Amino acid sequence: MKNVIAAAALSLVLSDFAYANEQRDEAMMKITPSTLTDADIQAVSPALARFGREAISNDLWQRDALSARDRSIVTMAMLIARNQPEELKHYIAVALDSGVTPAEVSEIITHLAFYAGWPNAMSAVSVAKAIFEARGVTAESLPAASPTLLPLNEQVEKQRADTVEKNVGPISPGLVKFTADPLFLDLWQRPALTPRDRSLVTVSALIAAGQSAQIGYHLNRAMDNGLSAEEAGEVVAQAAFYAGWPNAFTAAPVVGEVLRSRESKTE
Amino acid sequence: MKNVIAAAALSLVLSDFAYANEQRDEAMMKITPSTLTDADIQAVSPALARFGREAISNDLWQRDALSARDRSIVTMAMLIARNQPEELKHYIAVALDSGVTPAEVSEIITHLAFYAGWPNAMSAVSVAKAIFEARGVTAESLPAASPTLLPLNEQVEKQRADTVEKNVGPISPGLVKFTADPLFLDLWQRPALTPRDRSLVTVSALIAAGQSAQIGYHLNRAMDNGLSAEEAGEVVAQAAFYAGWPNAFTAAPVVGEVLRSRESKTE
Amino acid sequence: MKNVIAAAALSLVLSDFAYANEQRDEAMMKITPSTLTDADIQAVSPALARFGREAISNDLWQRDALSARDRSIVTMAMLIARNQPEELKHYIAVALDSGVTPAEVSEIITHLAFYAGWPNAMSAVSVAKAIFEARGVTAESLPAASPTLLPLNEQVEKQRADTVEKNVGPISPGLVKFTADPLFLDLWQRPALTPRDRSLVTVSALIAAGQSAQIGYHLNRAMDNGLSAEEAGEVVAQAAFYAGWPNAFTAAPVVGEVLRSRESKTE
Repeated sequence: MKNVIAAAALSLVLSDFAYANEQRDEAMMKITPSTLTDADIQAVSPALARFGREAISNDLWQRDALSARDRSIVTMAMLIARNQPEELKHYIAVALDSGVTPAEVSEIITHLAFYAGWPNAMSAVSVAKAIFEARGVTAESLPAASPTLLPLNEQVEKQRADTVEKNVGPISPGLVKFTADPLFLDLWQRPALTPRDRSLVTVSALIAAGQSAQIGYHLNRAMDNGLSAEEAGEVVAQAAFYAGWPNAFTAAPVVGEVLRSRESKTE
Repeated sequence: MKNVIAAAALSLVLSDFAYANEQRDEAMMKITPSTLTDADIQAVSPALARFGREAISNDLWQRDALSARDRSIVTMAMLIARNQPEELKHYIAVALDSGVTPAEVSEIITHLAFYAGWPNAMSAVSVAKAIFEARGVTAESLPAASPTLLPLNEQVEKQRADTVEKNVGPISPGLVKFTADPLFLDLWQRPALTPRDRSLVTVSALIAAGQSAQIGYHLNRAMDNGLSAEEAGEVVAQAAFYAGWPNAFTAAPVVGEVLRSRESKTE
Repeated sequence: MKNVIAAAALSLVLSDFAYANEQRDEAMMKITPSTLTDADIQAVSPALARFGREAISNDLWQRDALSARDRSIVTMAMLIARNQPEELKHYIAVALDSGVTPAEVSEIITHLAFYAGWPNAMSAVSVAKAIFEARGVTAESLPAASPTLLPLNEQVEKQRADTVEKNVGPISPGLVKFTADPLFLDLWQRPALTPRDRSLVTVSALIAAGQSAQIGYHLNRAMDNGLSAEEAGEVVAQAAFYAGWPNAFTAAPVVGEVLRSRESKTE
């Protein structure tokens, strides 16, 4: 309940109970936009504090195109990809308050060790460790180190392995090897995140880091795994705020290409 | 007066007053290159300390192609775009000592919340807050949250909106919406920075973050807003030092293309 | 001897001396993967701790394609390029324990002031300063500020200067000037790093920062300076872990192009 504005209590006195409940649910969605307080931001830029309230808390996070849970996953992924532990503190808390489980937070960090780099994950581990301790999250709530993996789609995996062997084999045998195991034969098959959420994390990290060359493959995979076109478009809008307008505008045409090529295949 | 070398006092005794004044003005431009002291840098690399003095303090910052005020704006923008709060500390002080007002520092951070991402701006807010407190900058010196905006050029805005709607509308309606308001209808029309300085900040951030795909549009806008070709070229030189040679060399051909296309239009 | 697992002592009792020595040498190569302890990582993700042990310590760093010394140089360069001082702490120690001298650490930071940006180097200076103090590294061990430079290959330099003048001269005279001096006439000619190691540092930084447009020139230079195709490919594998899979996959085709174009020239 921390990190959400829950000021609706007073309305209990003023109005009937149902109305109060409605207000509270709405209020619960209102995240504050930063680890910094509104007063901190005001001390440097009253305008920035206003944009944070009006555009981020009251508008972006209220939009239907992406659930609050998805938004907090997307935001976490972007902050880890861009190595911003200060704000990550706040948004891991937002995620836990929006229905993301500690096990999922753990697994998102694990996933991004590969897609944002090991050092970015280490930085996220430091942040998450403190939050887990403060919230009493214990080892039992965390995904197992070596669980039973999801069943592998052998055909999809063979195609992936063949493409990588052909393109990367003559250049970096090491990269081919590690991309098979641990990346695709282990990490991607772990059950602690749904394939759709794993893809959502990956695409968010790629957009936030300006990795346009890698978005196409992973957005297709994300949509095969259940991400809708509307959700993909809204990830780009979320990126505008959390990774800057230039990254959103660099990603948009790549996302557009994927959408068009999938439409033409469906027809 | 901190962060500038003002060692010219002795010459008062040696020479006439006018000469001393000249010397002092020149000396005032000599910034030190880092939050770290020369001794700190020497302890790891005497060569690096020498390059900092010879190439950055005594050469780069003395060049006529860009004023010290512009250089400090460019450098601030690059440090915020690359999220380097330690060095930002030093260069906000340099900026304030070079004629950038606290209101402009505030507005540069606000602007970069959009062009470098909200988390980068939060990190800059923390740094600026401490400096503002130390220098006694109060709320009255800061730009208003909701001032009277600059008059909008309806034709330019219509063209921008049409292009974005056409290219991004089918992909991310959210991005289209937020790009109109708050980005172009609010932020860009705020009077706390001149359009030329706002563009200078934007272009500097794009170059520093390696966002080549977005440089063309914004450099054209910057030059429409009064940035000269010589200044644009010198921003690239400044980027070599503050964002690394690779970013400068990636930006150079994009800048060249804009310059050539504007020349061919003029002919 | 810190930061390496040296648990082979017990085998002295169990086995003969030669065997113990073998074990110890092998054990000495086993780096731990982070500034964070295994317990820190376990507290957030047991899986991540396992990947760190199995994939990074026991596999990646044991591969023959790149020596431990080279790997630690590559990793340092990537961490500086991505401005990750926390992990850099650990990997400077790993480098010093793997045969990289303090003078080389110093010069790698100096080199990356140009290729990763001055602020990234300042951040690395802070980290290295503390390590140098703790290990008793004194000024005498550091490369001189202005040593006798390596002899310049006038022909190669003329070609470089001509190309830059032609491409960048009309855009940014400042960039042309500083690229000649201090970059190529001073920094690259300093004897504190071999040209091959200097190129290895440069290529690693470019891959880690996703600077694909600049990889071609510098990888060719690296291979002219003695880097093998196998080593180049393994730098890409190292990048997968320390700069994330997307950067490795963005670099791979560029590396492939260089390899193919050099092969076709040889034929």
